[in-house]
Amino acid sequence: MSFASPRDAVHKPRELWIGAAQLGPIARDEPRDAVVERLLKLLRQGAEYGCELVVFPELALTTFFPRWILDEGGDGPISGDTTELDSYYEVEMPSVATQKLFDEAKRLSVGFCLGYAELTPPDSAGVRHRYNTYVLVGRDGEIEAKYRKVHIPGHEAHEPWRQFQHLERRYFEESPDGFQVHDAFGGKIGMAICNDRRWPETYRVMGLQGVEMVLIGYNTPLNYAPDPSQNPLAAFHNHLVMQAGAYQNGTWVVGVAKGGIEEGVESLAQTAIIAPSGQIVAQATTIGDELITARCDLDMCDRYKKTLFDFDRYRRPDMYSVITDPTAKSLVDSVARDRPDFDRLTQGDTP
Amino acid sequence: MSFASPRDAVHKPRELWIGAAQLGPIARDEPRDAVVERLLKLLRQGAEYGCELVVFPELALTTFFPRWILDEGGDGPISGDTTELDSYYEVEMPSVATQKLFDEAKRLSVGFCLGYAELTPPDSAGVRHRYNTYVLVGRDGEIEAKYRKVHIPGHEAHEPWRQFQHLERRYFEESPDGFQVHDAFGGKIGMAICNDRRWPETYRVMGLQGVEMVLIGYNTPLNYAPDPSQNPLAAFHNHLVMQAGAYQNGTWVVGVAKGGIEEGVESLAQTAIIAPSGQIVAQATTIGDELITARCDLDMCDRYKKTLFDFDRYRRPDMYSVITDPTAKSLVDSVARDRPDFDRLTQGDTP
Repeated sequence: MSFASPRDAVHKPRELWIGAAQLGPIARDEPRDAVVERLLKLLRQGAEYGCELVVFPELALTTFFPRWILDEGGDGPISGDTTELDSYYEVEMPSVATQKLFDEAKRLSVGFCLGYAELTPPDSAGVRHRYNTYVLVGRDGEIEAKYRKVHIPGHEAHEPWRQFQHLERRYFEESPDGFQVHDAFGGKIGMAICNDRRWPETYRVMGLQGVEMVLIGYNTPLNYAPDPSQNPLAAFHNHLVMQAGAYQNGTWVVGVAKGGIEEGVESLAQTAIIAPSGQIVAQATTIGDELITARCDLDMCDRYKKTLFDFDRYRRPDMYSVITDPTAKSLVDSVARDRPDFDRLTQGDTP
Repeated sequence: MSFASPRDAVHKPRELWIGAAQLGPIARDEPRDAVVERLLKLLRQGAEYGCELVVFPELALTTFFPRWILDEGGDGPISGDTTELDSYYEVEMPSVATQKLFDEAKRLSVGFCLGYAELTPPDSAGVRHRYNTYVLVGRDGEIEAKYRKVHIPGHEAHEPWRQFQHLERRYFEESPDGFQVHDAFGGKIGMAICNDRRWPETYRVMGLQGVEMVLIGYNTPLNYAPDPSQNPLAAFHNHLVMQAGAYQNGTWVVGVAKGGIEEGVESLAQTAIIAPSGQIVAQATTIGDELITARCDLDMCDRYKKTLFDFDRYRRPDMYSVITDPTAKSLVDSVARDRPDFDRLTQGDTP
């Protein structure tokens, strides 16, 4: 491997050369080693293109296992035989299977961001925790930062009426850590995972920490059982939220899919690299393993951060208190369908 | 005027029939009476189409006067002869010129939302306040609610280098009231004005109050002097933020422009009615006075509010504290361009 590419000649100081490594399906019985070989291929391709950082999607080492009930079920916590369930989690990182990826990153001097299911060692109370996790690995092959998913979608108990399950709320705890921004790769880098990207708070919490690039991996089924009217809008919504998050915070966003038809479930692809203007500057055109790249000028963030979205000058934090108010719930509950003024307002229509 | 339209036969209980009344330019010397005649024409057209509520844009009674320095200028507050400046404000509502609009609304049983510059009576300290204001008027011709703009864009002092001024921060105070949601027109209605629509907090603060429709008027020049690279994106950004705000809060959004070339300054048109799905269901195709309409099913909000964006189930208010933290400023200031790790991370590129 050599860097006889034109990168060194043209690379600008505040540019970050990014590879977004979309993955196609991972079969339920596909061994870790085989998956890691796919990741290595994409990492090497990234190195050839001069990338400094290659971003893999959420849960990039296994099939999307929350689509099955894998324990005894019931309303309570995980119980019974958890052998298969546990097999999808990593108990250390690097693990035996992923060590190759760390070694190759160091050899190539290409960092990466990797999503996986994390099963922690027992805490002081003897409890092991399960998180949906991202690690950011530097160009020296060392872990620079870890992020655990804050917004966990789906449901807690087995719901047999669904064509497939989305048991993330059974298999993952909500992050206790929140959104941090890290000095890495010459910029301010943040991470988010899948459903996080639909919440404006995700980008804003990092935007207020000066984030310049948000890395987001996702697995998004094209069939949303609770409301199928959203199905044809999946691709639109995916880009809408990431483009708005980028623009409204003056940050780059790298959205990376695991797409295609995995174990009979079709998921969104459309991996995209989005500029602080909200513009999509690179987009995947397949539903399989595919690397897309962009040269991201981190100084472009200031075009928005120092003008229209100069937070210090224009934001009104004193007007936003309900956003962090844990009792806001009651406000929503008070929406009454049978409003006293409803009749008054809808009558008088007839001449 | 009669309602021999098919509306009564087909109007569903939770539908709100909306007219978005885009305005073309208003000349600097155009009298209020002439403007009100234009508004009356659009209101009557709305009635003919069966609308229950017609939404006018921001500052719908006058030219967009913050494009000129109209007092003595300087860094301090407004000073010197304010005769022309004051002439653009309303000191009461209804005023003599707008009374006709209120009377016609009552006669037709069509509510409206109207943007104007408000100059208050002296407060207890003898101070008169200037706000960029919206009023919501019921089908009985009575004011139901008032909103004052929270996010004031532009600048405080005359900046002669600009092709035209954007002195909103000189001529308007920030709202001390914030975003409220009102039981009106059979639903939960909120208001916002122009720059407010670019901030996700605007929609979220109302979303947490169960808002089902947000009315937004705007005057948006196509030339953004601080960063002209944003100019070709004006239309994209306009729809992006309103569509994201609608989707992320499961609410209808009605965005109404004053567009066209006014006193030599070209402004965005593209008035749009946006569903809780984020889809644009109606859009203006001219840059002048134009009424667009939509039958808005307020129950559609629940498709999002009760599924993907079930706030009580999925939001993490404890993770958002920086959003309402007035000291968040310091976090952004701490973004250093000369990071200690920058050299380490960007070196080692060469083989």
